[in-house]
Amino acid sequence: MAISVGKAELSTESQSLLATLSPGKRTRLRRLLYEFGPGSGTLLFLPIDQGIEHGPRDFFPNPASKDPEYQFRLAAEAGYSAIACGYGMASKYYPAYAGQVPLLLKLNSKTEVPPSDEPLSPCNASVEDAVRLGADGVGYTLYAGSPRQEEDFIQLGKIRRDCDRFGMPLVIWAYPRGRDIDKKGGRDSFYAIDYAARMAMEMGADVVKLNFPKFNPEKDKDQPAPYNELDVTPEEAVRQIVESAGRALVVLSGGSRTDDETVLSHTRTIAEAGGSGVIFGRNVWQREKSEALEIIGQIKETLLSHVHRIP
Amino acid sequence: MAISVGKAELSTESQSLLATLSPGKRTRLRRLLYEFGPGSGTLLFLPIDQGIEHGPRDFFPNPASKDPEYQFRLAAEAGYSAIACGYGMASKYYPAYAGQVPLLLKLNSKTEVPPSDEPLSPCNASVEDAVRLGADGVGYTLYAGSPRQEEDFIQLGKIRRDCDRFGMPLVIWAYPRGRDIDKKGGRDSFYAIDYAARMAMEMGADVVKLNFPKFNPEKDKDQPAPYNELDVTPEEAVRQIVESAGRALVVLSGGSRTDDETVLSHTRTIAEAGGSGVIFGRNVWQREKSEALEIIGQIKETLLSHVHRIP
Amino acid sequence: MAISVGKAELSTESQSLLATLSPGKRTRLRRLLYEFGPGSGTLLFLPIDQGIEHGPRDFFPNPASKDPEYQFRLAAEAGYSAIACGYGMASKYYPAYAGQVPLLLKLNSKTEVPPSDEPLSPCNASVEDAVRLGADGVGYTLYAGSPRQEEDFIQLGKIRRDCDRFGMPLVIWAYPRGRDIDKKGGRDSFYAIDYAARMAMEMGADVVKLNFPKFNPEKDKDQPAPYNELDVTPEEAVRQIVESAGRALVVLSGGSRTDDETVLSHTRTIAEAGGSGVIFGRNVWQREKSEALEIIGQIKETLLSHVHRIP
Amino acid sequence: MAISVGKAELSTESQSLLATLSPGKRTRLRRLLYEFGPGSGTLLFLPIDQGIEHGPRDFFPNPASKDPEYQFRLAAEAGYSAIACGYGMASKYYPAYAGQVPLLLKLNSKTEVPPSDEPLSPCNASVEDAVRLGADGVGYTLYAGSPRQEEDFIQLGKIRRDCDRFGMPLVIWAYPRGRDIDKKGGRDSFYAIDYAARMAMEMGADVVKLNFPKFNPEKDKDQPAPYNELDVTPEEAVRQIVESAGRALVVLSGGSRTDDETVLSHTRTIAEAGGSGVIFGRNVWQREKSEALEIIGQIKETLLSHVHRIP
Amino acid sequence: MAISVGKAELSTESQSLLATLSPGKRTRLRRLLYEFGPGSGTLLFLPIDQGIEHGPRDFFPNPASKDPEYQFRLAAEAGYSAIACGYGMASKYYPAYAGQVPLLLKLNSKTEVPPSDEPLSPCNASVEDAVRLGADGVGYTLYAGSPRQEEDFIQLGKIRRDCDRFGMPLVIWAYPRGRDIDKKGGRDSFYAIDYAARMAMEMGADVVKLNFPKFNPEKDKDQPAPYNELDVTPEEAVRQIVESAGRALVVLSGGSRTDDETVLSHTRTIAEAGGSGVIFGRNVWQREKSEALEIIGQIKETLLSHVHRIP
Repeated sequence: MAISVGKAELSTESQSLLATLSPGKRTRLRRLLYEFGPGSGTLLFLPIDQGIEHGPRDFFPNPASKDPEYQFRLAAEAGYSAIACGYGMASKYYPAYAGQVPLLLKLNSKTEVPPSDEPLSPCNASVEDAVRLGADGVGYTLYAGSPRQEEDFIQLGKIRRDCDRFGMPLVIWAYPRGRDIDKKGGRDSFYAIDYAARMAMEMGADVVKLNFPKFNPEKDKDQPAPYNELDVTPEEAVRQIVESAGRALVVLSGGSRTDDETVLSHTRTIAEAGGSGVIFGRNVWQREKSEALEIIGQIKETLLSHVHRIP
Repeated sequence: MAISVGKAELSTESQSLLATLSPGKRTRLRRLLYEFGPGSGTLLFLPIDQGIEHGPRDFFPNPASKDPEYQFRLAAEAGYSAIACGYGMASKYYPAYAGQVPLLLKLNSKTEVPPSDEPLSPCNASVEDAVRLGADGVGYTLYAGSPRQEEDFIQLGKIRRDCDRFGMPLVIWAYPRGRDIDKKGGRDSFYAIDYAARMAMEMGADVVKLNFPKFNPEKDKDQPAPYNELDVTPEEAVRQIVESAGRALVVLSGGSRTDDETVLSHTRTIAEAGGSGVIFGRNVWQREKSEALEIIGQIKETLLSHVHRIP
Repeated sequence: MAISVGKAELSTESQSLLATLSPGKRTRLRRLLYEFGPGSGTLLFLPIDQGIEHGPRDFFPNPASKDPEYQFRLAAEAGYSAIACGYGMASKYYPAYAGQVPLLLKLNSKTEVPPSDEPLSPCNASVEDAVRLGADGVGYTLYAGSPRQEEDFIQLGKIRRDCDRFGMPLVIWAYPRGRDIDKKGGRDSFYAIDYAARMAMEMGADVVKLNFPKFNPEKDKDQPAPYNELDVTPEEAVRQIVESAGRALVVLSGGSRTDDETVLSHTRTIAEAGGSGVIFGRNVWQREKSEALEIIGQIKETLLSHVHRIP
Repeated sequence: MAISVGKAELSTESQSLLATLSPGKRTRLRRLLYEFGPGSGTLLFLPIDQGIEHGPRDFFPNPASKDPEYQFRLAAEAGYSAIACGYGMASKYYPAYAGQVPLLLKLNSKTEVPPSDEPLSPCNASVEDAVRLGADGVGYTLYAGSPRQEEDFIQLGKIRRDCDRFGMPLVIWAYPRGRDIDKKGGRDSFYAIDYAARMAMEMGADVVKLNFPKFNPEKDKDQPAPYNELDVTPEEAVRQIVESAGRALVVLSGGSRTDDETVLSHTRTIAEAGGSGVIFGRNVWQREKSEALEIIGQIKETLLSHVHRIP
Repeated sequence: MAISVGKAELSTESQSLLATLSPGKRTRLRRLLYEFGPGSGTLLFLPIDQGIEHGPRDFFPNPASKDPEYQFRLAAEAGYSAIACGYGMASKYYPAYAGQVPLLLKLNSKTEVPPSDEPLSPCNASVEDAVRLGADGVGYTLYAGSPRQEEDFIQLGKIRRDCDRFGMPLVIWAYPRGRDIDKKGGRDSFYAIDYAARMAMEMGADVVKLNFPKFNPEKDKDQPAPYNELDVTPEEAVRQIVESAGRALVVLSGGSRTDDETVLSHTRTIAEAGGSGVIFGRNVWQREKSEALEIIGQIKETLLSHVHRIP
C-alpha cells in the first residue's frame, strides 16, 4: 500500500473502501454497489423525501409521483441501487418490494416552512428501525456550517455509533446551510461543498451525497482564502471535492429539475472525478414514467461508461 | 398489485392499509373500523380534550358536557369508533366503559394561554400508558411547520417507535401552525393542510386527522407556488389532500361549532374524497344530548352512504 | 351508574373516586381521607414549603414556625390529614413522626427571587423518594398557562407515570401563572382558576389544590369569553371550578394571612361546593401555637359540618 | 423530644443531626466531626477549588499554594476535618494522603470568565466518583436565586438522590447569586444569605456553607420586607441564619483574604451562633506555611472554645 | 515525598504522574511516552483534525496532506508518539497502521463557519469508540471561559468518567475562547492560557495541550490582576503555566504555520519549562514530505536534548 501523493494514486487508494469496512457494512454496501442498480461499483439512488422537505408541491408536474407506490415501483423496475425515503413511507410501502430494490432509510427530515438560517434536521427514525425494516443503509442530513452544528454533530454521532454497532452503511447528505455559510460564499460555493465533503468523511460517512458546486463571481469572493481567489474549472472543483471525502464514496445530487443535458453532464463529471454515482429525484420523477425510464437508462449508461473508481 | 397512476387507482391502492400493518396494529385498528362505530371501514371519533386545549369555556353551551362521565356515556350510547381523550380522563372514567367504546389515548396537549407562534404539544402520556389502559390507538398533535419542529419530530419519532413496538395504531392530529405558516397562506390554506397530510404519513401515521381547508383569496396568494395560482374546488382540494396522505387513513375534524348542513356536507366530502371518517367534538356535545344523538345518527348515515375506501 | 347532568348528579358521580383508583392509591388516599385529619372523607393539609418558595421572611410573625420540628409537632398534635413539605425537611424531621401524621412529599419548588413571567417549578425529588420515606402522597406545582408549559407537562407526565407505577396519590398545586395569564384576567381570575382545575384533572391529578378566585371588574374583562361577561357569585364560581376538576378532589389553599372569618368562610364555601378540604399554612402557623390549635379546631368543625362529597 | 419554641430549644433540637442520618452518612460525617480536624463535633475544611473558580491568580501571594501537593500536605499536617477539591486534583493527589485527611469531593465548578448574572455551576463529577475515591463527603455549589435555578435544582436533586443511595454526606455551598438577587439587596445581604441557608436545608443538605452577611444601608433597603427594615447585629443575623438551616450543620466561608482578627472573630461568631465550623481557603494558604499553621491553630482553638452545638 | 515549595521541587514532584495513574491509563500513556515517538518520557503528536476545524483550505499548501493515508504514513514513518484525529478518519485509515503508530482519538470537533463568541465543541465519538479502535488516548477540546462552559463541563465530565472506567488517558485541548475571554486580554494572553492549564488539570486531564502565550501590551492590560501588571519573559510565563497544570503533562501546540526557528525555539522552551512535548500539525504537513521529515527530526532532537521532566 503506497503513500498517496497527488491525483492518480489517490484514486487507487480510495478503491479500498469495502476492504476497510466491518462485515455488516461490507455486506450491505456491496449489495448496493454490485448486486442492485447499474452495478460495477456504482450507486444510483432514488430519493423520495421531497414530500416532507418541500411538501406535495413537487408532485404537481407529475401527479402520479405523489403516490409512494409509484415511486417504489419505479425504483424496482428501473433497477436502482436503492430507494431513499423516510420511515412512514418505508413501513407502509417497502414490504411489497423487499428483494426487488434495496432500501436506504432516511433518518432525519424537516419541512421548508420555517426559515433555514439555523437549520437542523431532527431524527424521527433510528438505525434499529432500519435494521428491522431490512434496509441496506441509512441516510442522515448534516447541515454543514449551521449555527446549530452542536446538536447536529451529537445527533449524527449517535447515529454513526449505531451504524457501527449494527454494521449499517451511513450515507450523509452533506448540505452547507445557514446564515453563516451564506456570508462565506453561500451553500453552493466550492468552499462550502468542499468543506461539507470533508466534514462528512471525518464524521464517519461511508457515502457522501453532495450538490454540484455553482460558480458565481459575485459571491465567490466572500469565500475564505484561498477559495476566493481560485480559478478552477467545475470539473477540477468536483475532483478536489471528491478527494476531500477521502475513502468515503461520493454521489452527486441533482436538486430541482434541469435539462437532460445537464443531468447527464453532471453524471459524467462526478464519475470522472472519482465519484460513485448520482441521486436524482425530481429530475427523474417529475416527468412521465416512460420518459423517466428513458433518462434513467441514459444516466446508467453514462455512469458505467465513465466511472473509474472501484470501491 | 398494479402501479398507481392517477386518481382511481390511487383509491384502490390505498384500500390495502390493514394488510400492511403488523398484527397488533391490525387487530386494534380493525376494531375501530369494523367492530365499533358506524363500521364498514369508517371512523367516527369523539374528541374530548378541549378542556385542556381551550379550557372549560367550551362547556358553557351545554354544561353537562363538562362532566367526563357524560362524554364517555355519549360515546358508548351513540356508538362511536372511539373516544379520544387524555390520560387524566381516561384513567378515571374509561374503566367503567371498557368494552363499550374503544379508547384513543391522546398523548400530548397544551393550553391556549401562551401565544401559538412557536407551538409544541408536549407529551404527558406514553404509548405504554395506552397499552396498560387497554386503548386501541394513540393520538399525537403535530404542529406542521412550527419553528419548534425539531423537538416535535423527535418527540413524535419516539412515540411512533413505541407504536411499532407495541402494535398500537398512531393517529396524528396534523395541524399547520406557527408564525411561518401564517406567512405562507395560513393554517387553513390548501398548501398548509396538503403539506400536513403528507408530513403525517411520512412520519408514520396510520390515521391522519385534518381540518377542512378554507379558501381565502386575500391570503391564498401568499402560498408557495403552485398553490398560490391554483383554481380548485374544495372537493378537489380535499381529494388531493387525501391522496397526499397515501395509505394512511384520513379523518376530518370539525373545529368550532357550525351549522348542521356544513357538518353533514363536510362528512360527505371527506367520504367521497377517499377519507375514512370524521372527528367532531364541539359540533356534537355543544348541544343537548338528544340533539347530539340525532346529528350523530345523520353523520353516520352520511358517512356510510358515501364512503368508498375500504381499508 | 347514571349519566351526570347538572349539579346534583355531578356530586353523586364524583363520590366514586376511591373506587376508580388502583389499590396503592386507594390505600394511601384513604388514609388521608379517613384515618388521619378530620376524617369523613375530608382533607386538611399543613403546607410548609414557604421557606423555599418565599424565604424565611414568612416565619418572622411567629419565629417558632421556622423550626421544622415545630411544624411536624403541630401537624401531629392538631391532627392533620398530612403535612406537605420538601425532601430536605421530610428526610430530617419526618422519621420521628412516622405514624403520627402522614407525609405529602412536595416534589418541586422554586424561589421567589427571579421574576415569574415564565415560571417553572423544577423537581428536586422523585416519587421513589416518597415511597422510600413512607409518604402517602406527592405534591407537584403546575404553573397553568406558563410559557414554559412544555417543560412543565413533560415533567409532570413523568411524575404522574411514577405515581401510577407506585400507587402514589398525586396532588397537583394548580397555579395559573406567567405573563400570558396576566394578560387574560390574571392568576386569580375565574377563567384562570377554572382552567387550572380542569388541566390538573386532565393531567391525572387525584387531588387538586386551588386558590380562591378573586373578582376584579377592571381585570375580569380581559378574560376570554364567556368569562369576561359572566355575572356569578363567588360560591357559584367555586362550584363550577370544582366541577371542572371532575372526579379529582379539590382542596382550597389559603395564601397569605387573612382574618379568621375569611378563613372559615372559604372553608365552608369549598365544602359546600363539593370540595374536600383546605390547605392553610401561613393562616395557621403565623400565629402562636395555642391560637393555631384553636383556628384549626374551627376549620375542622366547619369542614365536617359542610362537606357533602364522599369520595 | 420537646417542641422547639424559641432560641435555646432550637439549639438543643438541632444537636440530633447524626441520629437522623442513614448509617453511611453517619459513619462518614462522624469521621469529619470527631475523628479528624479539631474534633468535638466541629468542622474545619480546606477548600482548594479557587484554581478553577478564579484561575491561578489566587496563588500569586504564595506561589507554593499553586501546587496541589502543597495543599494536601498542609491539610494533613494541620489536621483538617477534610480537604475540599475537584476531581482532577483529588484523583492525582489524594491517593497519597488517604487516611491522613478526609476528602470532600467538590462535584461542580465554573470559571469566573463569563459574567455571573445567570450563574449555574455544572457537575463534572458524580457521587459515585466520590465513593470510588474514598471521599467522606461531596460538595455542591447552589446559586440561590439564579435565573437558572430550574437547572440547578434538577441537577442538585440528582446529586442529593445519589447521596442518599450511597450514604454520602452532602455539603451545599449556598451562594446567593445572579441579576435578581442583585436587585434585592445583593448576594451578601441578610435576606439573601438567610434564604440560601433555608434553601440548602430544604434541598437536603447535611452541611451548609455560607458567607458572612454584610450590612450596607444603601443596598439593604432593597431587600424584601421585613429584612429591609430590620435592625439586627451581625451576631444576631448569623444566629437567625443558622436557625434557618434547621438541623443541617452550618460552616462559614471566608472569601478573599482579610485580617486575622476578622478571621477569628467570624469563627467565634459562627460557633456561638450554633454553627459547626469554618471553611477558609485564601485566608490560610495565601500566607507562608508557618504562618498558615499558626492561624489554623488559632482558628481551631477559637472554634473549640466557642462551639456549643453537638451534632 | 517532600512538600513542594517553589520551582525546583515542583518539577521533582510532577515527575510522578505515571505512578498515580490506574493500570489502564499507565499502560497506554507509557506507550506514548516511551515505546513510540521520541521516547524518554516525551510526547510528539501529529494532529490531523484541521479538515473539520478549518475545512480543506489548510491542505492547499501541500495537496498530498489532504489524503488521510498520507498523514498516517507520515506519522508512522517519522515515528510519532501518536496521531490525533477524529472517528471518521480513524475508522477508515487507522486499521492499516495498527502497531505502527498509536492512535489518539479526538472525540469532539466543530467547524469554523459559525462565529466563535460562544463556542462549544460537541462530541461525535465516545471513549468506548476509542477502546474499540485500539486507541491509546482520547482528545477533548475544552473552550476555557466560553459562555457555554456549563455544557462543556458536563460533556467533559462524562468523557472523563469514561476515561477512568476504561483506563484511557485523557488529553485536553485547553483553548481559551469566546466573547468574555476576548474582553479579558484575549485567547493568547498569559492569564487565559494559565487559567486554561489549571482548568484542564482540575477537570482531570492527564495531558494538557496549550498554545504558546503571546504578549501584547495593548490587550494585556485588560487581563485581571495581577496579570495586567506582570512583567515576565515568555519562558517564565510558560514555566508558570506548566506549573499550573500540576501533575498533568503539558504539550505545546503550534497553530498556523510559522518559521522553523520559532518551531524549534518553542519546542525548547516548553521542554525546559517542564513540559513534555509538542503537537505540531500545519507546521509539519504544510510542506513537502522530505522537508517534513527533516523538521520532525530537528523537533525530536530539540525535545530530547532539553526535556527534563520524567513522568
